Amino acid sequence: MSGERFEAISPSDFFYRNRDIAGFDNVVRATYTIIRELIENSLDACDAVGSLPNIYVRLLIEKPPSTYRVKVIDNGSGVPLEHIPKAFGQVLFGSKYTVRQTRGTFGLGGKMAILYGQITAYSSVKVVSSVGGSERYAFELSMDIQRNSPIIKFRHVLPNHGRWRGTMVEFRFEGDYARAKAKIIDYLKQTATLLPYANITFIDPEGVFYRFRRATVKIPKPPMEVLPHPHGVDAEVIERVMRKSQPMSLAELLSKHFHRVGLRIGFKFLKEAGLDPNMDIKGLRPEDIVKLVQKMKSYEGFLPPDSSCLSPIGPELLEKGVLKEFSPEFVAAVQRKPKAYSGHPFIVEAAIAYGGRITPPPPGEVWLYRYANKIPLLYDTHSDVTMKVIKNIKWKRYKIELETMPVAFFIHIASTKIPYKTVGKEFLADKPEIEHEVSLALKNCAKKLKTYLIQRERREIHQKRIEVLRKYLPKISELTSKLAGKEEPLDIEKILTRLETAKH
Amino acid sequence: MSGERFEAISPSDFFYRNRDIAGFDNVVRATYTIIRELIENSLDACDAVGSLPNIYVRLLIEKPPSTYRVKVIDNGSGVPLEHIPKAFGQVLFGSKYTVRQTRGTFGLGGKMAILYGQITAYSSVKVVSSVGGSERYAFELSMDIQRNSPIIKFRHVLPNHGRWRGTMVEFRFEGDYARAKAKIIDYLKQTATLLPYANITFIDPEGVFYRFRRATVKIPKPPMEVLPHPHGVDAEVIERVMRKSQPMSLAELLSKHFHRVGLRIGFKFLKEAGLDPNMDIKGLRPEDIVKLVQKMKSYEGFLPPDSSCLSPIGPELLEKGVLKEFSPEFVAAVQRKPKAYSGHPFIVEAAIAYGGRITPPPPGEVWLYRYANKIPLLYDTHSDVTMKVIKNIKWKRYKIELETMPVAFFIHIASTKIPYKTVGKEFLADKPEIEHEVSLALKNCAKKLKTYLIQRERREIHQKRIEVLRKYLPKISELTSKLAGKEEPLDIEKILTRLETAKH
Repeated sequence: MSGERFEAISPSDFFYRNRDIAGFDNVVRATYTIIRELIENSLDACDAVGSLPNIYVRLLIEKPPSTYRVKVIDNGSGVPLEHIPKAFGQVLFGSKYTVRQTRGTFGLGGKMAILYGQITAYSSVKVVSSVGGSERYAFELSMDIQRNSPIIKFRHVLPNHGRWRGTMVEFRFEGDYARAKAKIIDYLKQTATLLPYANITFIDPEGVFYRFRRATVKIPKPPMEVLPHPHGVDAEVIERVMRKSQPMSLAELLSKHFHRVGLRIGFKFLKEAGLDPNMDIKGLRPEDIVKLVQKMKSYEGFLPPDSSCLSPIGPELLEKGVLKEFSPEFVAAVQRKPKAYSGHPFIVEAAIAYGGRITPPPPGEVWLYRYANKIPLLYDTHSDVTMKVIKNIKWKRYKIELETMPVAFFIHIASTKIPYKTVGKEFLADKPEIEHEVSLALKNCAKKLKTYLIQRERREIHQKRIEVLRKYLPKISELTSKLAGKEEPLDIEKILTRLETAKH
Repeated sequence: MSGERFEAISPSDFFYRNRDIAGFDNVVRATYTIIRELIENSLDACDAVGSLPNIYVRLLIEKPPSTYRVKVIDNGSGVPLEHIPKAFGQVLFGSKYTVRQTRGTFGLGGKMAILYGQITAYSSVKVVSSVGGSERYAFELSMDIQRNSPIIKFRHVLPNHGRWRGTMVEFRFEGDYARAKAKIIDYLKQTATLLPYANITFIDPEGVFYRFRRATVKIPKPPMEVLPHPHGVDAEVIERVMRKSQPMSLAELLSKHFHRVGLRIGFKFLKEAGLDPNMDIKGLRPEDIVKLVQKMKSYEGFLPPDSSCLSPIGPELLEKGVLKEFSPEFVAAVQRKPKAYSGHPFIVEAAIAYGGRITPPPPGEVWLYRYANKIPLLYDTHSDVTMKVIKNIKWKRYKIELETMPVAFFIHIASTKIPYKTVGKEFLADKPEIEHEVSLALKNCAKKLKTYLIQRERREIHQKRIEVLRKYLPKISELTSKLAGKEEPLDIEKILTRLETAKH
C-alpha cells in the first residue's frame, strides 16, 4: 500500500503556496505588486461609476528596516456592506467575473496583496467603504487561508455626512521600497500617461510627494457587460445556459444567450449546421452539443462582437497623456477598429512620440510602453508579442532609425480577455489577430510621423534657402539696381517674409 | 448606486476561465500539454511506490479532423477507491501538497487535461485503478465546474486477478496532433534521457510506435516527506502549527514542527531572538509572531535542509540516459551538494555531451536541455535562468566554442519548490542561489570535457607523429643499417606498436 495522503486545499491556500505566479516572488517584487494591485482596484472602482479618479496612496515605514504600512483611498464605487468581508477576505470572490473590460481579470490581486501582508507581517486589513449613502462602514478583517473565508475582527457603522463614496484600504507588510522604488515610479508615470483624466498622489516612505495631476476631465466611455460571443463558445458555456434555462428551442437559446445572434441569424446558422432550430434544448444529446459547439466556433455568418464592452482610451486622450508625461516634439496616436480573437473582442491603440524630451534609446533597447486594459506592463518586455511586432517592421520605410532616433512607442490593447501568459500580468501570449492589429496600428502612426519628418525636413531646407537668400539678396539687389540704373533697391525684407510664410 | 454584481467562483471555474495560464491556450499547445500532464502523473505514481515505470500512451483520432481519444496506462501506485472521484474530478485535490519533490506541484495538470476534454469534446473521463488488492475499480466521471465537484456517471467493482497495480485514464478532446507532434516527440525523448529506467510506449494517431526502452533497472532513491524548514517560515505556517497543537512551549513547537530543529538549537535560537523558550505558545501575541518569523528566517544557526525530500537522478543515470538517447562521443555529468533558497532545499545536476551524433547548434542557438523535478521544460528556453548562466560562462577557458562545437548541455534542478514563473511550468524565475549552483555544475562538467579534449588533442598529435614515423622509419632504418654495415634492419613494427600503446 502506498502512503499517499490525499487532501483538498482551498483556492486561497493554493495561491498562498504559489504566490510567485501572482507576482509575489520576493520582497521587492511584492512591494511593487501591492501598490499596483491596490491602485488598479481603485481605478476599476472609479470606472464602474464613471468617477474622475482621485487616488491617494501613502506608503509609510512602520518599523525599520522592512515593515511598511500602505494606505490607499479612492473615490470609486465603494463596496456594499454585505460584500465587504468577502471582497477583502475571500479569494475568487468579486465583481469582475463578467464579459466586460476590467483591469482585474483574476479577482485575485488585491486579496493576494492583503494575504501577503498577513503572512509576512501578521497584519489584518482595515477597510472603510461607502457607496455614497448616509452610512460608511469600517471593518478590520483577516483571512482564514485554509478555509478561504474572511474573519471579522471588528465592524463599525459610521455616519457618512459628506455622502462620501469610495474605499480606504490599509495594512502592513514586509517589503523593500528602496529597491522597488524605480519600478513603482515608472508604473505611476506610465499610468498617468494613459489616464490623463486621473489624479494620483503617492507619498513615499521618505516623505516625497509624487503628484500626477489630470490634464483633462474627459473620461473614456465606460465598458458595458455583454453576452458571450458564439465564436468563444465551448461545451461548458452551453451546459450552463441549458442548466439555468426554461424549456425553449435551440434558436431561442442562441438568440437569448449569445452576443449578436438574433432569431434570424440563429435559424440560418442552425439549418446550415444540420441542427433543428425548433428542437427543445432538453432533447440535445451529447453529440449534438459537440456538433453545436464546433459549428458555432467556425460559422462565418455571425456578426463580429461589438465593442460596447470595451473601454479604449481614444487617440485624443492618448496624445494628451503622452504630451503631459513625455513632452515630445511630435506625437501621433491611432485607434484601430474593434476586432476579435476566439470570440473575444479587442481594440488596439497606439502612439508614436518623437523628439522633445525623448532621447534616443540605449543600445539594443527600444522605448516601448505597453498597456493592457489600461494597465502598464513593466516586466519582461522582451518576451512580449508587441516587441516581436516592432522588431519585424521595416522602420526605414517610415524614415525611422530604430537604434538612433529619439522615438517612443505606446501600445494599448483593450479586451474582455487579455491573453496574459502569467497571473502576474506581465506579458501577452502571441495571438495572430492581435499581432496583426498591433502591426497595423504602429504602421499608421509611423506614416504620420513620416509625414511630419518629411515636412520638417522640407521646412529646414526651405529655411536654409531663405538664410542663403538673406545673405546674398541685398548684394544682388544692390548690384542689379545699379546696373539697371535704379536708385531705390528692392524691398528685400518683404520678399523674405513672403518666402518664409509660404506653404512648403 | 452601482450595478456591480459580486459573486464567488469555484477554483475549477477559475482555471476553466484562465486555462491559458496552465498551458491550454490553443489546440496545439493543449494536445501537447494533455500528453505531458498525463505522463507526469503516471511517473509520479510510479515514484510513489518505487515501481520501474511502464507507461503506455495511445492517441487515436476518433473523428477527423480534430477529435482525439487519449488513453494512458501506468503501473504506479493506483488511487484508493474512496479518492478516485475527487482525484479526477475536483481541482485542488490531490496527494502532492506536502514538502516532497514531485513533478506535479499544483495538483492541477491532470484535471485540467480532463476538463479540457469536457469543454472541447463534451467528454467524460474513464478511469480504471487499483492499488494492487483483489479489486479494481472502473469509473466514468465528469466535472461540475461551477461547484468544483465530480459527477459519477458510472462505477463498477471488478475482480483484479493478476493483482495489477496502476491506473488507466481515457477521454476525448479537440486537438491538433500534426502541429503538436514535434513537441510531443521531443518531450518523450527528453523524458527518456533523464529516466533511463523507464519504459515509455507512445502510439500516435498515424499508428507509429515510439518505444523508449529502459537501459537500466536502477531507480533513484524516492523522495521522503519532511517538515518545513525554519528559513521558509511565514506567519501562516506558525498560525497553522499553533492551531492544531496542544499547549506546549515555544521550544517544543520549533522542535516538533520544523525540519532540523532540535530542542538544543531551538533553545539557543529563541534566547538569541529574545523570546522565552519556555513560554506557552497560546500566550504568543501578534508582535511575538512577527518577531519569531523574522528571526527564524534570518537565523544562521539552523542546519541547512537535508536532501531526503529530494530525488535527484545521479550522475551515473544521467550519463546513461544521455548516451542512450544522444549517442555522443563523450559525456560528463556531475551532481552538486544540496543547497537551499528561502528554506527550500534543491540539488543541481548537469551534464555536458560532446561529439558523436550531436551536431554543432544552429546559428544563435545552444543545445540546452532543461529539467525541473524530472520534467523536461520545452518552452521559452531563452527566458530561463539556465540560459542566462550559459551565456555568462567564459567557455573558451574550457576549450569550448559555444557557436561551432557539437556540444549539448543538460541541467536538472530537483527541489521541493521549483520557482516556476507560470502554472504551465515553462521556465524558472531567477534565484541567485540556483543560478550559482547551475554555474558551478556546468563549470565542473566543462572541466571534465576540457581534460578529455586535451587528451584527445594529444592523442591526435601522437597519432600523427606515429604516422610520420611509420612512413619514414623503414627508410631511415634501412639507410642506417646499411651505413652501420648491418644486414638485418630493425623491427619497425614492434617499435611502432610500442609507441602507439604508450601512455600519452
